[in-house]
Amino acid sequence: MKVSLVQMNAIDNKQVNLKVVNKLIRKIVAVESPRLVVLPECFDFHGGTTETATAEAECFPDGQSYNFLSSIAKELGIYLHAGSIIEKFDGKIYNSTVVFDPLGSEVARYRKIHLFDIETPDGVIYKESDTYDRGDQIITYEIDGVRFGCTICYDIRFPELYAELVKKGAEVIVIPAAFTKQTGEAHWELLCRARAIETQTYVLACGTTGTHVEDGEDRYTYGNSMIVDPWGKILIRADHEVCTVTSTIDLNYVSEVREKLPAINHHVL
Amino acid sequence: MKVSLVQMNAIDNKQVNLKVVNKLIRKIVAVESPRLVVLPECFDFHGGTTETATAEAECFPDGQSYNFLSSIAKELGIYLHAGSIIEKFDGKIYNSTVVFDPLGSEVARYRKIHLFDIETPDGVIYKESDTYDRGDQIITYEIDGVRFGCTICYDIRFPELYAELVKKGAEVIVIPAAFTKQTGEAHWELLCRARAIETQTYVLACGTTGTHVEDGEDRYTYGNSMIVDPWGKILIRADHEVCTVTSTIDLNYVSEVREKLPAINHHVL
Repeated sequence: MKVSLVQMNAIDNKQVNLKVVNKLIRKIVAVESPRLVVLPECFDFHGGTTETATAEAECFPDGQSYNFLSSIAKELGIYLHAGSIIEKFDGKIYNSTVVFDPLGSEVARYRKIHLFDIETPDGVIYKESDTYDRGDQIITYEIDGVRFGCTICYDIRFPELYAELVKKGAEVIVIPAAFTKQTGEAHWELLCRARAIETQTYVLACGTTGTHVEDGEDRYTYGNSMIVDPWGKILIRADHEVCTVTSTIDLNYVSEVREKLPAINHHVL
Repeated sequence: MKVSLVQMNAIDNKQVNLKVVNKLIRKIVAVESPRLVVLPECFDFHGGTTETATAEAECFPDGQSYNFLSSIAKELGIYLHAGSIIEKFDGKIYNSTVVFDPLGSEVARYRKIHLFDIETPDGVIYKESDTYDRGDQIITYEIDGVRFGCTICYDIRFPELYAELVKKGAEVIVIPAAFTKQTGEAHWELLCRARAIETQTYVLACGTTGTHVEDGEDRYTYGNSMIVDPWGKILIRADHEVCTVTSTIDLNYVSEVREKLPAINHHVL
């Protein structure tokens, strides 16, 4: 199965971001014909303030981003794992992945469980819980008989979520992200590979990159989108540029790794 | 707090191994005066067959290795985290860590929970459960007000054990190991660092190295003992040689990392 990741520099302007995404998706589909295209976290709106972000929230199945994604998935005949959109539901705001099938139908919705409330070593504070409520559902979906698991960014630090996805049959786990440059340099590659090794799944890790203005200040994300195999080998990785990366993933290799080193069957705690 | 790891090539001869360990411990204590010395998994007997290994099992608090460790800890006035000894208890055989204090008293005993039943990619089969029963207790102990957590080798692939140790207050986690060369090259450093990053603890990872004869065949372990800080940085690491490595660990840094990026307080599943 061929999969493509779109690495982009999302800003706090939905019109601009959707134009960029539209172009990048069409280009990669024309060149590579992937079965699945993955977008990063907050691909349609990144930064701003709690107020401007909240104002961009969409009530699915309505909304500009939602409709755009559904249409383009259908037009191009692809699965589209839309990193995350700001979702308004029942008076709450979520950081939500939406996945569309080649008919343009929503096949999965995952609300980010672990919210990023931290201070980086150089003193920049992030507090996602000021804007978002947290999800509480473990979400998977299927493409051509293969089960995919949903996570977002900071979730990567919580292996128990990944173990739950494996219990539900995941053989591929997707991690749309907007990892900070600083924590990215220290931890991103290592955690992507650790999750792949422990869960013996392919990991599709798709990040935003570059400078974003948030609360009036410049913030930087790390890029370095990558596809990792179940043995922890990086099949392809981007650097800091806006780009797409594509690889074919061999689902037989998941069974092969799991047969020889059946760690996922050895959990006892 | 200064800590030292003893990296050695244990063989299937307890007399020889204890002589080597005796020499290495005395030397590092004379030179570095560590508060704690860590030995690798199976430091006193490595390889052989299920029969010869079982014949070496000790009934604590009796046994040649047990008594040697207690004596040397007392004589040198050190804490001694004795990687693992084959323990016989209640008709069962365990792969057990024993920890001694500077008075020579046992302060912790951990029976390996996850047994290594795998086939390496080049076809070598390991089946620890043929020899051992598995433990089921999460074990920590304290040195100078700092809590240490116990794990052994293959446990490293199961982050839920590490999360449990953190719940019990661990700020340092010890991983005596006998990692195979092949899985070591692919995964050892990465998993040591991932466990440190997720748990925001110091990781003391102490391995055997070199060639071992098991069931009449040559097996190779990976060495590469290392001390990792709670941000995932390797403070010191060995290569493949028989050696000791020492580092001072700054326990204030654990609080500092946990305060800024309080991931260990964000578990919700």
